[in-house]
Amino acid sequence: MTRPLSGFTVVENDSFVAAPSACLALSQMGAEIIKIDPLKGGPDIDRWPVTAEGRSIYWGTLNRGKRSVAIDLRSDEGRELAQALITATGDDPAKNGIFITNNVGRSFLTDEVLRAQREDLIHVKVQGSADGGPGVDYTVNAETGIPGITGPAESPRPANHALPAWDLLCGQAAVTAVVSGLLQRSTTGQGTYAEIALKDIALSAVANLGWYTEALQPAGERQKHGNHIFGTFGTDFTTADGRSVMITAITTRQWRALIDTTGMTAVVEALQAALGVDLSLEENRYAQRETLEALLKPWFAARTLETVTAELTGTGVLWAPYRSIGEVAREAADATGDSAAGAIRGLASDQLDDMLVGANPIRFDGEYLSGERPTVLGEATHQVLSEKLGLSQTELGRLSDSGVLSS
Amino acid sequence: MTRPLSGFTVVENDSFVAAPSACLALSQMGAEIIKIDPLKGGPDIDRWPVTAEGRSIYWGTLNRGKRSVAIDLRSDEGRELAQALITATGDDPAKNGIFITNNVGRSFLTDEVLRAQREDLIHVKVQGSADGGPGVDYTVNAETGIPGITGPAESPRPANHALPAWDLLCGQAAVTAVVSGLLQRSTTGQGTYAEIALKDIALSAVANLGWYTEALQPAGERQKHGNHIFGTFGTDFTTADGRSVMITAITTRQWRALIDTTGMTAVVEALQAALGVDLSLEENRYAQRETLEALLKPWFAARTLETVTAELTGTGVLWAPYRSIGEVAREAADATGDSAAGAIRGLASDQLDDMLVGANPIRFDGEYLSGERPTVLGEATHQVLSEKLGLSQTELGRLSDSGVLSS
Repeated sequence: MTRPLSGFTVVENDSFVAAPSACLALSQMGAEIIKIDPLKGGPDIDRWPVTAEGRSIYWGTLNRGKRSVAIDLRSDEGRELAQALITATGDDPAKNGIFITNNVGRSFLTDEVLRAQREDLIHVKVQGSADGGPGVDYTVNAETGIPGITGPAESPRPANHALPAWDLLCGQAAVTAVVSGLLQRSTTGQGTYAEIALKDIALSAVANLGWYTEALQPAGERQKHGNHIFGTFGTDFTTADGRSVMITAITTRQWRALIDTTGMTAVVEALQAALGVDLSLEENRYAQRETLEALLKPWFAARTLETVTAELTGTGVLWAPYRSIGEVAREAADATGDSAAGAIRGLASDQLDDMLVGANPIRFDGEYLSGERPTVLGEATHQVLSEKLGLSQTELGRLSDSGVLSS
Repeated sequence: MTRPLSGFTVVENDSFVAAPSACLALSQMGAEIIKIDPLKGGPDIDRWPVTAEGRSIYWGTLNRGKRSVAIDLRSDEGRELAQALITATGDDPAKNGIFITNNVGRSFLTDEVLRAQREDLIHVKVQGSADGGPGVDYTVNAETGIPGITGPAESPRPANHALPAWDLLCGQAAVTAVVSGLLQRSTTGQGTYAEIALKDIALSAVANLGWYTEALQPAGERQKHGNHIFGTFGTDFTTADGRSVMITAITTRQWRALIDTTGMTAVVEALQAALGVDLSLEENRYAQRETLEALLKPWFAARTLETVTAELTGTGVLWAPYRSIGEVAREAADATGDSAAGAIRGLASDQLDDMLVGANPIRFDGEYLSGERPTVLGEATHQVLSEKLGLSQTELGRLSDSGVLSS
């Protein structure tokens, strides 16, 4: 198949998770990505996790399928080269003029300055806060209220996410901004300036789940309830061999399957009669969640994960085993040679040994888009500047000698 | 400004978070959304949170700016009407033929059946697992390994997310699939079938953070480390008045600002000499995180949140107070009349009282896209079928009388 962004060129100058993850996705969708880097890399070039040799797995995983051009962005000549790359028209202007950045403080990269050079630019700027203030996933998350309802109910401390959920969501919004900008430019000829604040991503998402509206209701705001799913029945159970499983009963069918399989149907019927509540309604299961959890606990405690798996399979119970990061990794590494590879792929890298990377999770016409090669800092500097801006070997040599470019 | 998807019509038939959140975003970007609902609503029509009167805040918040068409999808006539809406060409076929669903088991909505009626359909299908199996945010999250590294380090249980992060990310991927499908169809004339499995969304995202690669390294997989940020310095502190603040020192500049402001510079210098480590390197701050946390604790414990705020403001320390869901809601409700409204907006609803809803967090040319009206189940049934399929009042009356449509 032809990838949906085949033929397009996107320029990025960014760091950390949000913007680089956007460009990784665009690369998988077929776009050529030119990554403008400072000569020694951005602030995330050595970021953890790292290999035993100290190389950043973080940077190397988020930056694949990109052509890195290393430029001294403190020099006037370097800044002009960066601007020229961002606003280049190429053979087909409709396929260029797309720029993603999280650099909010650089005067040579303001929308005004860049748009003066190319009026129909699609410019996506990722920022901390819409007022220009800083923000990272952890500070933004604290301000949403989510850590206060995450983690064990008995713990008085807020629980931070290990997952940078807001960064990832922000990255996907940047993808939307680029592609919708292209769609609009294809008909109107006009460019787009799209600004996306991480804090807005978070607040808007929580608002759209209805949780702020809920807090204004007479019953007040939601309290921390540990691993239970809000408003229905679902929580974790421990097996005889110390493993954890996540069990859910969201629909009536799943609920009946759960109590039937665990032999609890008669007990639940008697309980319903005794309490005068209909547990086929999920709100009642939620209200009785601690009692139901206690009733089901012995069934799981008496069985190993293997037995639980065997007995739940095919019953209609919606459940999953908790796996560790290492288990997922080892399973995926073992499956690497498999032709039916899924969302996680193996990738051999000179710098990072055996990598496990994510394919684009959207299967376009049945196909996972993947296959990016590792990016190396500055490796494409001369090649890209020659191709895109027509710089001669003499000129490239002079710029490298004077320290404006990596050699 | 003209919204980027102005003029386009998208049809949805879905429930829960992912697909409806995608269509909400598309609505905010200017698309007309036709939501095909079962006569009594989908499985999420009464889902919690609910108002004091039992109306679903969940459904009402995710479904705004959509025209609900209620059809008996078990009847042959109803199914044919749904197919006709999905594959309608309207005046300009390029602006129609876009369908998002999470219904994976319905034979009248398979891609094969729909594409036979309209070859250039853009069809986005959200599923649990790529193999056709079920999956919800909680089961998928358990399988990524993330709950095992979330929450207090001393707790042996995995910690589930309260936030349905994977659902939200999946929704944004569905937006990408639609818009990139439109971009491609605008040049090639060809449609797209995009399938997105929630489990793939999660596994691919974690893989692209490098965490599975990290687990294959000699040092093995990451362990739970509570509220500390991995690989740098950042954690929560408690103030004199029992509030929590998230403090980070990711860059050297932020670190120096933190120890300077808290009066710890000399202590840290002495500690560096005693331990023989350079704490200006973030990996060393991470290694010494518990010591640094202990050193900084008294400063926060001696000050109220108000004093902490006053003393940290303008110093360059990157931090945020933890807020509760209720605090965010009350602040946003108080600011509702404000003309400079941000990502959270007030919305008056007959059914749900005062709502707080999220604008589209992408500011296109400086503007938050918002302003959707509440959706009411079945309210647009006759209007949409008349407009889009040309059904007469007589025909609509007959279909309502026979129970195929809501009246």
